[in-house]
Amino acid sequence: MSDLGFKLPEVLVDIDDGVIDLGWGHPSPDLHPLGKMQHASEKLFELKSSVPLQYGAAQGYGPFLENLAIFLSRQSSYTNNVSPLNLFLTAGASQGIDLACTLFAKAGDVVFVEEPTYFVIEKILQDHHLNISGISIDSNGIIISDLREKLESGLRPKFIYTIPTFQNPTGISLSTERRKQLLSLAEEYDFYIFADEVYQLLSFDIEPPSSLLNFDNSNRVIEFGSFSKILAPGLRTGWIQASQEIISRFTDAALTFSGGGFNHYTSVLINNFIELGYLDENIDCLKQIYSERAERVSNSLLKNFNDDISFTHPQGGFYFWLQFPEAFDAEKFLPLAEEHGVSFRPGNAFSASAFFNNYLRLTYTLYDSNSLADGVTRLAKAYKEYSS
Amino acid sequence: MSDLGFKLPEVLVDIDDGVIDLGWGHPSPDLHPLGKMQHASEKLFELKSSVPLQYGAAQGYGPFLENLAIFLSRQSSYTNNVSPLNLFLTAGASQGIDLACTLFAKAGDVVFVEEPTYFVIEKILQDHHLNISGISIDSNGIIISDLREKLESGLRPKFIYTIPTFQNPTGISLSTERRKQLLSLAEEYDFYIFADEVYQLLSFDIEPPSSLLNFDNSNRVIEFGSFSKILAPGLRTGWIQASQEIISRFTDAALTFSGGGFNHYTSVLINNFIELGYLDENIDCLKQIYSERAERVSNSLLKNFNDDISFTHPQGGFYFWLQFPEAFDAEKFLPLAEEHGVSFRPGNAFSASAFFNNYLRLTYTLYDSNSLADGVTRLAKAYKEYSS
Repeated sequence: MSDLGFKLPEVLVDIDDGVIDLGWGHPSPDLHPLGKMQHASEKLFELKSSVPLQYGAAQGYGPFLENLAIFLSRQSSYTNNVSPLNLFLTAGASQGIDLACTLFAKAGDVVFVEEPTYFVIEKILQDHHLNISGISIDSNGIIISDLREKLESGLRPKFIYTIPTFQNPTGISLSTERRKQLLSLAEEYDFYIFADEVYQLLSFDIEPPSSLLNFDNSNRVIEFGSFSKILAPGLRTGWIQASQEIISRFTDAALTFSGGGFNHYTSVLINNFIELGYLDENIDCLKQIYSERAERVSNSLLKNFNDDISFTHPQGGFYFWLQFPEAFDAEKFLPLAEEHGVSFRPGNAFSASAFFNNYLRLTYTLYDSNSLADGVTRLAKAYKEYSS
Repeated sequence: MSDLGFKLPEVLVDIDDGVIDLGWGHPSPDLHPLGKMQHASEKLFELKSSVPLQYGAAQGYGPFLENLAIFLSRQSSYTNNVSPLNLFLTAGASQGIDLACTLFAKAGDVVFVEEPTYFVIEKILQDHHLNISGISIDSNGIIISDLREKLESGLRPKFIYTIPTFQNPTGISLSTERRKQLLSLAEEYDFYIFADEVYQLLSFDIEPPSSLLNFDNSNRVIEFGSFSKILAPGLRTGWIQASQEIISRFTDAALTFSGGGFNHYTSVLINNFIELGYLDENIDCLKQIYSERAERVSNSLLKNFNDDISFTHPQGGFYFWLQFPEAFDAEKFLPLAEEHGVSFRPGNAFSASAFFNNYLRLTYTLYDSNSLADGVTRLAKAYKEYSS
């Protein structure tokens, strides 16, 4: 026994007792398909093969890449046939993005991000000493005129980091027209597009816009997928989809060769999960539950807040992005909300330039519908107190 | 089914039919404890807890860190009690080193490596655009006078990368006296010591020298451990041991927060493996088998090569480093050896400055003793042809 006198935490999420924390972009532990993962694991050992314990192939475990290609080819937003030659196994989207930063940029380079964006990736870019410049977005995603203006002013980014579909934190998706325009600018000004597509497969009633890869004729797009949102984040497994030229940059990286394919063992496990037909089932189940939860939050917000806030009902993904009146101060509101037993992420967290203090982000994936409704009620009570 | 017309590889190792390839620093697939891993996996699912599937705690899964600390405290070379507060979960030593490069250096910085060194790490440093300078080593490891000279000449490294114990490729260990001197220079010239200690626990008849951490009074040492050599590389799991101050740099890194603890699921699996008492058993078994194999290779080399080569019999780890006469050209010899059905890594692979062409590295871990002896016989035959 260790004699620390206290226990070290087991999981990342850290919520005070009695607080409904709508700030964490995590799936519900209750929704993790534990029994099905057990079958996938039993299948792994039934084969009595040592392959899952060896250094994995650099591009990724072959059967996993092949089954992933078949799975992706079935998805509506991947209209073209996906070849396993265009896939690369990662230890999750952020690991892929981190490696891409090492391989495609260096300290001092300029990179673009959406404003607002996923705050943790922005910090990963900062850890790589990159100079970040924000591009404004609206309800159709990146505002192309703003992007063009920055490029014409002389900024030369190595890449733009975007979450094209069901964006974090806003929930909006980049329109098809703008996807084409973005590609055209990437060609003209010679930069890569890092497309963080971890929500794309969680669409509710609509088809998400076609993947940026479908408009890519010049090896500009590096798309990052993940099993964290569609299966289980603890497995730390994801993939990159890109041209063979770009895939070979990742496959040939020294880090890849040193340890072999990233998360080889868990990719074998997930390959079994896919072969057993569980992945499609799991995603269908998540889409239905998340869609119901989003509906419940939406109704609660409308009922409790009247016209004080505005938001777009999410069509997929994890988030509500609530806009409050101009004078609202989300950071000041946070401790008051927590006194009322509810928490959230204030808007300023989602930009290094900090212009979003009258916004806040709510997640509807971690709690069941009743708790979510309770959370919104508490939030409204706290807001009443805040505004009075 | 994918219609590539060929199968993508499953594992990293890639050996031509009929060749005994002594070049790969990989463990034997036959030695992976598949049945015991199955027990560890069954234990994971018996608990019916979703914890292994959630985002893991940033520093690592608490019980894993606690059991790892207890395990390490039992090892002879870790004379001090190891606290879980000084440990951090990684996805293998190279992932840890890669993250340390991002956090502790930036493009253009000078870093030192041993000459020769593990060639793949040198390429990882190059991928980070670091300026690498080599420090000579002898049978006691880093030559301190050479290191001091480079420092006095004005070079200011951010860190030195060393494999202190059973070094790759030479098999030698840094002496206790030099460990102290290295620490003293690190303090004086303000640099970190990245200690790649992946072979330390695989000692044969000797006690390895005391860990650099035992001489570290100023938060200079970052030690990288791994389960790749003592359990199974496909699990992609390792750890960092360092001062709490340094551990917090890794725990607070954006990449860590984004995905939660690295390789959470496999760390839960390994925690079960440790709790079942299997890790000590496994290491004892590996030490005995590797020691016998090293003995067999040693005897074969002495019998087949007479006085044409010199080498030190390994006291642990994975490697033989064979020195041939000055005029020998390992790169020229390689294709001839392969014609004779045996392969190896030529010495020049282990240094960016390429001064080791009359050396070659043999690994004795991937094959059983009879195949190893066959391999050495083939090598000797090829050498006879080469020298005639």
